[in-house]
Amino acid sequence: MAENLSGKALATAIRADVAERAAKLTASGVTPALAIVVATDDDGTLWYVRSIVKAAEKVGVRAVIHTVENPTVEAIAATLTELAADDGTHGIILQTPLPKGVSLTDLAHLIPAAKDIDGASPVSAGNLVIGTPAFAPATAEACLELLAHHGVPLSGKRAVVIGRSAVVGKPVAQLLLRADATVTVTHSRTVDLPAVARTAEVLVVAIGRADFVTAEHVAPGAVVIDVGTNTAADGSLVGDVEAASVDGVAGVLSPVPGGVGPVTTALLLRHAVAAAEGGF
Amino acid sequence: MAENLSGKALATAIRADVAERAAKLTASGVTPALAIVVATDDDGTLWYVRSIVKAAEKVGVRAVIHTVENPTVEAIAATLTELAADDGTHGIILQTPLPKGVSLTDLAHLIPAAKDIDGASPVSAGNLVIGTPAFAPATAEACLELLAHHGVPLSGKRAVVIGRSAVVGKPVAQLLLRADATVTVTHSRTVDLPAVARTAEVLVVAIGRADFVTAEHVAPGAVVIDVGTNTAADGSLVGDVEAASVDGVAGVLSPVPGGVGPVTTALLLRHAVAAAEGGF
Repeated sequence: MAENLSGKALATAIRADVAERAAKLTASGVTPALAIVVATDDDGTLWYVRSIVKAAEKVGVRAVIHTVENPTVEAIAATLTELAADDGTHGIILQTPLPKGVSLTDLAHLIPAAKDIDGASPVSAGNLVIGTPAFAPATAEACLELLAHHGVPLSGKRAVVIGRSAVVGKPVAQLLLRADATVTVTHSRTVDLPAVARTAEVLVVAIGRADFVTAEHVAPGAVVIDVGTNTAADGSLVGDVEAASVDGVAGVLSPVPGGVGPVTTALLLRHAVAAAEGGF
Repeated sequence: MAENLSGKALATAIRADVAERAAKLTASGVTPALAIVVATDDDGTLWYVRSIVKAAEKVGVRAVIHTVENPTVEAIAATLTELAADDGTHGIILQTPLPKGVSLTDLAHLIPAAKDIDGASPVSAGNLVIGTPAFAPATAEACLELLAHHGVPLSGKRAVVIGRSAVVGKPVAQLLLRADATVTVTHSRTVDLPAVARTAEVLVVAIGRADFVTAEHVAPGAVVIDVGTNTAADGSLVGDVEAASVDGVAGVLSPVPGGVGPVTTALLLRHAVAAAEGGF
């Protein structure tokens, strides 16, 4: 059985740090506040957004959901522009999914880098590539934090990322590269994906398909990070990794739920506090 | 002997297209113009910059060298800010190397994306990652154009990039990924680089060390793109690939000089004309 790369203890530690910093800010007259712009009535998304609000309240961060009625590009843009100019809002999250015909790339540039706590804007993405301070997408950063927390070395290691989304795959590749790993990005067009994946000492899976990665994708002893958050037929949360089969091959495996997820939420709150402090 | 992946015919074709578009612009009252900001007195750099000016003149693009005297960060920033606001300047290149203590990342954000014809700013880099229209660094784009010109397919191919600079390695990896290659980025910390490089069907070398890549890095029949521009002891231009040894193994090899270089210059001019047209 693979070692369990739980994110719970790490998330707890991050939240404790956030609570301390939030209390200091509040004492100095600034209540750290984040805004979540929601343009969907998807149940799962609304549940997730409310879970962020609850987690924020627990650590002294104010989180406000801004639901955009009749969410056209223009209407969402107007909300983002208003929040960008609002001194009382330190962090802005534009929650996906967006309505049909509305793309994150049409809107993310409206979030100023200093408030872009989920690293969605082109400026944040570019700074991540170039190496200047910026907020990384929280999910991507959570993978690296989880690896660091469990003492997994990355310098010189072969890392393979499955998935090339702008939200996870590409930024996690940038962060792994910054940590001196040798990084391969794979995707739907990759030929013989299992063989490429088996070259990985560290395998990050962010393809968005339930149970996609099986034992044939994993080298014996590899570290496997499962970023997937898929909803199973029975409504439960399942990852991109078929844990039952991978567990016998991997050396270390992050669980879903309880791995990357709680760390991601904690990092969003840490970013909000950092933004309120005036940094990254 | 490997097939010679020359950039000369491609560069000629690009320059012909640029000349046609520049003539149309000029006829309509807009002379396409680019500014090259120079903050060094390095001979090689000055020679290179003058070669761009000459190439620009030949296709009807005005190129002006702006030499920054006493080039502090502030002085260079002032020049960039002035050019950013100047309606008669359509493209801006901040030429490297910069003086000691001055970093491209301190300054590149001052180039507006619409004028950033060498893809140096964080916004350009981010748009490249996200997939929104932007100018890519000309050298990185030249690699892809060279491959396309010679009919090298990329979808599903294993590509390995040696070097992770923000100017070449990282953007060329983004462009290869966009072309559906499976992309590995390697660097100085990569363990057993020759073995990793040998997994490449397409190998792009941008490490900045003369004759660094030898036959042991190359799989039989591989396509090798040499981005290196190193000055040999006798003053001649040499690539990062030891051509004499790689020639017998690679299927295709881009020469230095005459490979990526002329295409890069032609693309800078194409970008300048595109900027004057109001696009990318």
